[in-house]
Amino acid sequence: MTDFKDFVRPYGLVSKVDAFGYLDELRRNPQEPRKHGRVVLVTADTPLKASRGEGKTTTTIALIDALRARGVDAAAVLRQPSMGITAAGSKGGASGGGRSSLTHPELVDWGLCGEMAAIESAQNLLVSFAEKAVDEGRLDTVLVPRVSEVPSRSLRQISVDRGRGDLAERTVLTPTCELMQIVVLSRSMDEIGRRVSAMIAGTLGGRPVTFGEFIDLWRITGILGDAVKPAMTETLQGSPVYVHCGPFANVSLGIPSLVSVEMACARHDVVVVEAGYGADAGAQKWLDIAAREYGAQWPAAAIVVTRATTWRDDPRLQWRYPFHVNRLEGLGIPTFPLINLWEGEDGQVDDLRAIASDLGFRRPIIGNLFRDGGTSLEPQLDGFIQALEDEGHEDAQVGWGSEEAVAGQASHLGMGVMDQIRWIVASAYGVPADRVVEKAGFAQSLESARGLCRGVGADLDRLVVVAVKSPATMTDDDTAPEAERTVTLKKVEAHTGAGLLQVNLTTSLTTPMPKIV
Amino acid sequence: MTDFKDFVRPYGLVSKVDAFGYLDELRRNPQEPRKHGRVVLVTADTPLKASRGEGKTTTTIALIDALRARGVDAAAVLRQPSMGITAAGSKGGASGGGRSSLTHPELVDWGLCGEMAAIESAQNLLVSFAEKAVDEGRLDTVLVPRVSEVPSRSLRQISVDRGRGDLAERTVLTPTCELMQIVVLSRSMDEIGRRVSAMIAGTLGGRPVTFGEFIDLWRITGILGDAVKPAMTETLQGSPVYVHCGPFANVSLGIPSLVSVEMACARHDVVVVEAGYGADAGAQKWLDIAAREYGAQWPAAAIVVTRATTWRDDPRLQWRYPFHVNRLEGLGIPTFPLINLWEGEDGQVDDLRAIASDLGFRRPIIGNLFRDGGTSLEPQLDGFIQALEDEGHEDAQVGWGSEEAVAGQASHLGMGVMDQIRWIVASAYGVPADRVVEKAGFAQSLESARGLCRGVGADLDRLVVVAVKSPATMTDDDTAPEAERTVTLKKVEAHTGAGLLQVNLTTSLTTPMPKIV
Repeated sequence: MTDFKDFVRPYGLVSKVDAFGYLDELRRNPQEPRKHGRVVLVTADTPLKASRGEGKTTTTIALIDALRARGVDAAAVLRQPSMGITAAGSKGGASGGGRSSLTHPELVDWGLCGEMAAIESAQNLLVSFAEKAVDEGRLDTVLVPRVSEVPSRSLRQISVDRGRGDLAERTVLTPTCELMQIVVLSRSMDEIGRRVSAMIAGTLGGRPVTFGEFIDLWRITGILGDAVKPAMTETLQGSPVYVHCGPFANVSLGIPSLVSVEMACARHDVVVVEAGYGADAGAQKWLDIAAREYGAQWPAAAIVVTRATTWRDDPRLQWRYPFHVNRLEGLGIPTFPLINLWEGEDGQVDDLRAIASDLGFRRPIIGNLFRDGGTSLEPQLDGFIQALEDEGHEDAQVGWGSEEAVAGQASHLGMGVMDQIRWIVASAYGVPADRVVEKAGFAQSLESARGLCRGVGADLDRLVVVAVKSPATMTDDDTAPEAERTVTLKKVEAHTGAGLLQVNLTTSLTTPMPKIV
Repeated sequence: MTDFKDFVRPYGLVSKVDAFGYLDELRRNPQEPRKHGRVVLVTADTPLKASRGEGKTTTTIALIDALRARGVDAAAVLRQPSMGITAAGSKGGASGGGRSSLTHPELVDWGLCGEMAAIESAQNLLVSFAEKAVDEGRLDTVLVPRVSEVPSRSLRQISVDRGRGDLAERTVLTPTCELMQIVVLSRSMDEIGRRVSAMIAGTLGGRPVTFGEFIDLWRITGILGDAVKPAMTETLQGSPVYVHCGPFANVSLGIPSLVSVEMACARHDVVVVEAGYGADAGAQKWLDIAAREYGAQWPAAAIVVTRATTWRDDPRLQWRYPFHVNRLEGLGIPTFPLINLWEGEDGQVDDLRAIASDLGFRRPIIGNLFRDGGTSLEPQLDGFIQALEDEGHEDAQVGWGSEEAVAGQASHLGMGVMDQIRWIVASAYGVPADRVVEKAGFAQSLESARGLCRGVGADLDRLVVVAVKSPATMTDDDTAPEAERTVTLKKVEAHTGAGLLQVNLTTSLTTPMPKIV
């Protein structure tokens, strides 16, 4: 009999789960009892700035506490926060707050069980292998960036081999690297190995060369041995929470590892998944990347979190919140607005309900989740629970890696890359194709990436687009009137291992390595 | 009642111990039952090259297995191997081999529970704090190096802020950094905090500035929360093994953390401590740094491991092994030669015994420890066990942080730095003071370090000397005749936080960042 406990080991104050092993066992024993939980996506309004969270993690925690108080077997899957950003002082961690907290937030905020550090070491070892390949004449350029979990402004642009080669290089934050994407998307260590082998290391005489041509793969997978295992912890109220990989939805995936969510679905009826930043970032990526292309489950419902001030205070940006809510509803996902009140905002509830009603939203869920936790949500969840019941469980088995695509949820790969980009810009940012602007050099960057792909036997048009942009903006200028909003395409980068095409969008700056504060 | 179990938590396939908490509890409850184990130092012949181990870890494991089979409550304390060196392919890990192995060597070799990674993040965060201080006008030069656990040749010399500041910097391997030294030597998180605060960050207008003047210390100690806890595992035969910090005896300390050894002494009668590389490196550092200056226990016995080939094959280097054995005996430490046989060397035992006898050694312990493990040692340990009994246990309580210095084991700090250096060179390398050569620039380097120390209220003459040299040589040319051997002093660097003065010795190159192979 498949016993989940056999795949769990305590790791200090949390546990870690051999999710690969557990899911494998379930696949080999389809008759074993298991659940087929439904995914609920918690996403948010576009934040006013990157460091100003709307409270997605706080909401996720409060929501599962409230659902469990109502008798629903709910669990949460969170992304591991970037320790570097916490250490840099730019954010106060990402493990909830107040009554909506984890039992050991300090562990989650400060490096958990070393998962991110292991991914950092492995990606940097890939760079060292590439250097060795340069020494051996197998490469003459290196295309993989170094990574650092701790931000350091001056590492954005570096020269290595000072006084000898003086080779220009760059360093990006660990969570944004291709290896992190591979860990998020892979369902076995073998798949990780195949994907690492397919990563482009650099070029030789203009010809792209993959890592598979020269590395000792076992050294990379050796380092990742424990990092691929999701961590398991709980909320202050005792609700189960899994934490694994994937922060930074604006420049990477911003979703937890697929196996952590799939495993949670095998164990619970409702699995609340936190996707990063606004609905234009993490939610877009869950839907268009994870669900459409990598066999993850299409959500049975969504919660879009905002703060009263984010929603209303800038009249030029008020369009964004209803845009997100309506967009997800338009995709057939029952979508619930949730307003996370701050101290002193209790008097605004009636006003907020009135606005929501004018906008034709479902009845919003409103509460001070930091102060009151799940108890403030509990009596407001009738509609939400009903929606989950209406969605039913019959679709849930379809969700994970199934061949049967549901209309509207099917792969976009047939579209080709430019149409994928136009789809994202239109559906997730509200800008039509005729206002998608190609910056000088974009076409060249695309052609160059196409050539690299061709050189390693990959098809650029079969890569999945990852939008790279500022977390605080969807278009070149979100404050412009709707008819004037544009989206500029800047450059692309092929991640042939992860199967992704990074596309830099909008004119705002994305900082790959912030300053510390 | 003080229960060790309260301070232990499982971490996957190993456990971690809150050694700070346990030792604190024992200090507060001196009536509680505890042991006062004796330290046995396992050290080695100077290796022919860095990557050629004599088998210290293998010996340490076989020795405790054999002692326990003889009814002695023995445990081992190992240094955590550098994952980077294993990943680089330069060494096959450092967790024993064959029958003399740990139950989960792969864990120990591949990053353990993230301790090294956390120290790397914390040291790099210090560099980021220093950068911020430059931006704020509090510093104009940065003196702390960046670190990487994964070796990368081209990081030895880098320029950061390419195209803007183009500031020259360097990157060293994580295990060699001052923060690692601080974790090895400290007995509480408060002590770590004080020592980090006393580290020199850089200078402003020539005046040295410590980190204590501007950092948020809690971010550093937050990262180190779990890294300060030794890991606990066992040998294939079930003997207890603690693993914590400290590789690289040639360029840093090369000894496990003092709390890991002190904790083991409270729990076992005999604690076998592995010190890095040859007796000229790790053993010298245990004796002259840990025991004399940081309150660690003077060893009750020593084992000096060699391979038959290392000892004998180069006639010009044959002097080194007896030099090490005789030197430790000369310090009053009962010292046992141990020859770790390789495949096909069983026939050499009589010959090796004859040579040892001619040299006046104690009866050597000889065995193929990879193949036979502790069982080959068991019948040979009468003399060793007798020596430990003769040493008795009455001194053991004196060993840890006691005020009562034993003659010959007392602090050398009164000597001043130059006399400390001369002592090390004479006693550990056999070169008298008149053949210690100062390279051009050495005196200036010393004066400059003295000035930095003065500027932060530290006294250079109260720093403890850390010899920095190649692991494979003790003098400028070990193959020269005894009367011609010299030691060249190259430069110094003050680690005011750790209380250490790094002194680069001999003309051989020390590579702070090797190539991968």
